[in-house]
Formats: sequence, structure tokens, C-alpha cells
Amino acid sequence: MSSMRNLARQLNMTYPIIQAGMAGGITTPDLVAAVSEGGGLGTIGAGYLSPTQLKQAIEQVRAKTKKPFGVNLFVPHDYTVQPDSIRHMNEYLNRYRRELGMDAVSSLPTEYAPDFDEQFDVILAEHIPIFSFTFGLLAKEQIAKLHAIGTFVIGTATSVGEAMALEQLGVDAIVAQGSEAGGHRGGFEGQNSGFLVGTMALVPQIADNVSIPVIASGGIMDGRGLAAAMALGAAAVQMGTAFLTCPEAGTNPSYRQALLNHTEEDTRITTAYSGKPARGIETSFVKEMDQYVGSIPDYPVQNALTRDIRQAESLLSCKLATNDGETT
Amino acid sequence: MSSMRNLARQLNMTYPIIQAGMAGGITTPDLVAAVSEGGGLGTIGAGYLSPTQLKQAIEQVRAKTKKPFGVNLFVPHDYTVQPDSIRHMNEYLNRYRRELGMDAVSSLPTEYAPDFDEQFDVILAEHIPIFSFTFGLLAKEQIAKLHAIGTFVIGTATSVGEAMALEQLGVDAIVAQGSEAGGHRGGFEGQNSGFLVGTMALVPQIADNVSIPVIASGGIMDGRGLAAAMALGAAAVQMGTAFLTCPEAGTNPSYRQALLNHTEEDTRITTAYSGKPARGIETSFVKEMDQYVGSIPDYPVQNALTRDIRQAESLLSCKLATNDGETT
Repeated sequence: MSSMRNLARQLNMTYPIIQAGMAGGITTPDLVAAVSEGGGLGTIGAGYLSPTQLKQAIEQVRAKTKKPFGVNLFVPHDYTVQPDSIRHMNEYLNRYRRELGMDAVSSLPTEYAPDFDEQFDVILAEHIPIFSFTFGLLAKEQIAKLHAIGTFVIGTATSVGEAMALEQLGVDAIVAQGSEAGGHRGGFEGQNSGFLVGTMALVPQIADNVSIPVIASGGIMDGRGLAAAMALGAAAVQMGTAFLTCPEAGTNPSYRQALLNHTEEDTRITTAYSGKPARGIETSFVKEMDQYVGSIPDYPVQNALTRDIRQAESLLSCKLATNDGETT
Repeated sequence: MSSMRNLARQLNMTYPIIQAGMAGGITTPDLVAAVSEGGGLGTIGAGYLSPTQLKQAIEQVRAKTKKPFGVNLFVPHDYTVQPDSIRHMNEYLNRYRRELGMDAVSSLPTEYAPDFDEQFDVILAEHIPIFSFTFGLLAKEQIAKLHAIGTFVIGTATSVGEAMALEQLGVDAIVAQGSEAGGHRGGFEGQNSGFLVGTMALVPQIADNVSIPVIASGGIMDGRGLAAAMALGAAAVQMGTAFLTCPEAGTNPSYRQALLNHTEEDTRITTAYSGKPARGIETSFVKEMDQYVGSIPDYPVQNALTRDIRQAESLLSCKLATNDGETT
């Protein structure tokens, strides 16, 4: 189980490279299929997809490849909806909406996130070969249901403690997400799920504390990072940012350009976009949110509030870079 | 110049492992000599040593080994001395002094840091074979003086920009300090010299942008980290924390125990100890400083103010872990 040869064989990969399940339209069926066809493992980032959209994406990938692929979902957690703080944030965001020529918003969103149980039912019904999850722990019964249909289950950890909890739960492999990783922090313990241990320190510590395969992620951009991750004890790597500029990715042109114009140094961890810590390019939107008077609503509330701005803005310029995917 | 074989040969190392020049009494002559004798490169952490102390340490190392060794110094930068803010901080710190059974302090320190020029003169007079520096750039003439006596010069970078500035200056190799590194951030650009790019992302980016050897540091604790660093393009590694628990290190017993009881997750970047960002164990002292009303004095002012507390406390218990060295 724990050797890298076994993991690649189990997941039918020629190369031990998993494309991260970045949400927000990045992981098109073309990208997922191309990665799996190319010898890695493509993953549908389904965190924000409705059950119907997810089913459709799965069908589209299956029409393009017979190889296995993965689906990633966000495990929900409790959050508070405070109408006053939402109205206050909407007023603040209306400044950006005005700049973008969009209508002001004063009403509360009707939905904050897709229903996880319904998304999960699609995974089961479609017999998805590899399922990965972030932001939390599944229930033991959910793991059992996945294993009953032969699904390989991957959890996400940003600390040794999270990795041990995932192994205890019965997952088949663990993504060790270092602080360099773009996009959302995938962890679930600690004050704000924002543990920031670098990949170099995290991977060997997790490898020393679990007996299932470890998949390194964070700051890995080419063969050097892959070789380094293997040296640290990983069985494979998961890369997100490295795939963002692929022709098949759903990355819009302005975001693509912003990625090529920036380096890791231009990124930071912020809760500005979604209410949950994520690494993204430090845009003026991110900087200005530091001055926001009041507290940023919890994930996924803030995520729902900024969605229209992220979508509209990303079509227009690089001023705001969407943070749904990975942006390192 | 740029191959790892050449760097090890130039520095007369059997293994491409440099012991970091941690300040604050950690790098005893015994440790420095033992590392050089063992096939790595020992380094005297001389940042806080007076010229006389430095000269003495050099003599002691030379009495123990004929092998080359390094000396590390802190390049000074401008800082402000604000008597009111010093008095305010001293009042705050007196709480800890009381707890430790020490006398309260109300006067201003007579010295904040040793005189760099005098320290530097010792390096030249003693013909130190390898000289490394952090926190800034030397002057071109200083580099020339070092090269004139055959000294190998190593600068410290936490970003690609800093690395390029160091190469431009004429150093012979660059330590790429990733965010995982314990102790002070060694950089000099940016708002607070606190750039936090992880080692996995930093090393290949610096290697791509300079033609001199890169020495990886941050989160490297064993052979896995060494192999990973080489895969990323480093010519050698610099390790600090890994040496803290060596019998030869000047680490006091309580700090030693604290290191063995904590992991990377228990550390954070803080300016509480010295006024300059540094990674250390998140002690109650660090946590409580978050609530400090007022701003923490600049480095090296705060460093001078907390010195007696760090020294006294570290002799008594683990409640405060000294942050002079590396603590990851």
C-alpha cells in the first residue's frame, strides 16, 4: 500500500502526478481527460458544482477518456449567517460592482453552497474511481459507502494531526498540503484551518506518522519539485497552479496572464474572497479588504457574496484574480 | 562554480551540509569544530558577539580543528530609538522579570548591538575562510576586501529579488531561506524582511535566476530534506534546528526539551523577541505580545530589551524559548 509504485499502479497513473481538483470552472472536462490520458490523474474540482452540473461534467470526462479520474468535493462545516454583516459586506462590495458596471446587490444570497449530500450521492451513483475531499472529515459511513463501490479515497491534511485523523478515519491516501499551495487551505483543525507548515517540513513529518501513501502538494511546479517530493517520502504529487495555464484549463485569459506575470512572492493567504484562508495573488481587492471595517463573513457566505464580482472582474482585467483555483 | 561538487570542494566539505550561524550562544566552538571535523561546515553565529568575544571564539575553534569553518554576521540597518516606547515596553516586560525573580528595568540599554565594522575587522584580520551574512547587503568594498584575503562569501535571500541583488553584489553563493526556517528571517527587502516563500517554491526559482550556487535552508531536518534540496537545484543545505539538540550545541536543557516536545506546527513568525520577524515556538510570551498596546520597538532595540528575560528564563523553564537560534 505505502510504496509509490503501488499508488501509481492503483490509480493507473504512468506518472505519479495528480491534477488538483480546483473549483470554479478551471477543471474543464478537456483538462481532466487530457491529464488522465497523459499518464497523470485528472480531477474534477466539483466543490461549487450543483449535482446536475457534476453529473454532466462526469459524463463529459467519460466521453473523452476511458482512464480513471478523480472528483474533489468540499466537506461542509458549520457557519453562521448574519444578515447585518452580509448587508454591510454587500455595501462594501457594491463599490467594486459599480466599478465593474454591475448592478448593486442588497439582498441576501438564496444559496451559499451546493448541497454536499446531493453531490456525494452523485459520486456514489456514478461509481467515481477516485474521490478526494478537503476542508474536513467525512463520516465513517461515507467512507464505507465509497469503499463498497471500490472508490479510492483521498483526504487533505495541512498538519500531522489532520493526517493522523484522516488515517484513523480510513482514507486510502493523504494529500499533504504545504503552505506554498495556491487556493484554499484544505485543512480543518486549528483556529482557521490556516496551518502554514511548508511542504519541505510537512511531507516527511506526515510520512513518519502515517502508513498510507502521502501525496505532496504546495510549491511543486516541475520535475524538480516531483523529485524533491519523492525524496521527502511522498508517493505522488498533486499540482494545481502548474495546470492553470494549460490550454485545456478553464482559466480565463486575464487570469492566465496574471499568473504568468506573478511569482510566489506576489501571493499571500487571505480570507477576502471566500471567508476561508486561501493563497492568491495580492490584488488591490485583497489589500483593500485589510481595511474592511467589520469581520468578513464565514465561508461559504463570503464566497457567495463575492461570486458575481469574481466572475465579472475576471472577464475584464487582472485587477482581481479569482481565487477559486490555485494561484501560486 | 555552480555545480554542487565544486561548492563542496571549495568549502572542503565531505557532505554538502552547512551548520547555520545561529546567534545567542548556540554555536559553541565545540559545535563548530565538530561539524567541520565531521565533514560539514561549522559556522560561528557571531551576530551578538563583541569583537573580543568573536576573536576568542575563532581562536577556540582553531584550537579544535584545522578544517575550514564559517562566521556569520548580521548586517546592520537603520532603526529608530524612541525612549518613550522603550520605557513602555520595559514596563510591560517587568511583569515577566517579576515572575522570573529578576530586578525591574527602567533605564534605556547602553548598547543595542555590537559594532558591525569592528566585528567585520575581526573577520578580515583573522582571514576567516567562509563568511556569511544576513539581514542586508554588504558594501561592494567590503566584498572586495573579503575576496582580497580569499574569503568565500555567502549572502542570505528570502526571495528571488534578494538573490539577484546578492549575485549582482558579487557574493560567491546564496542561502535561499524558505519560510520553514527557524530563527530570524534573513532577508532585507519588503515591508518587514518577512517574505514567506516556502523552501519548495523558493529554491528552484532562485536557482533559475542566479548562476552561483544556491544553499537551501528551511525545514530540512534529515537526509530526505538534503536529497530534496539537491533535486530542487541546491548545491548544499544549511541546517540550524537540526543541530540545536546536538550535545556540542550551547542549547540549554530546557530549550532542548522544548524543541523535542514541539513540531513545526507549534511555531510561528513573531517580532516579539527581537523586533525582527523570526520563527519560534509559540510561547505564552509570544501569544501575550499580540495584546501589547503600542508598537514593538525596531530590531535591535527590542532584542536588547528582551535579552535579560530570554537569558534568565531559558535557564529556568520552557515557558519562553529563546529565539536567537533556530527553533523549527
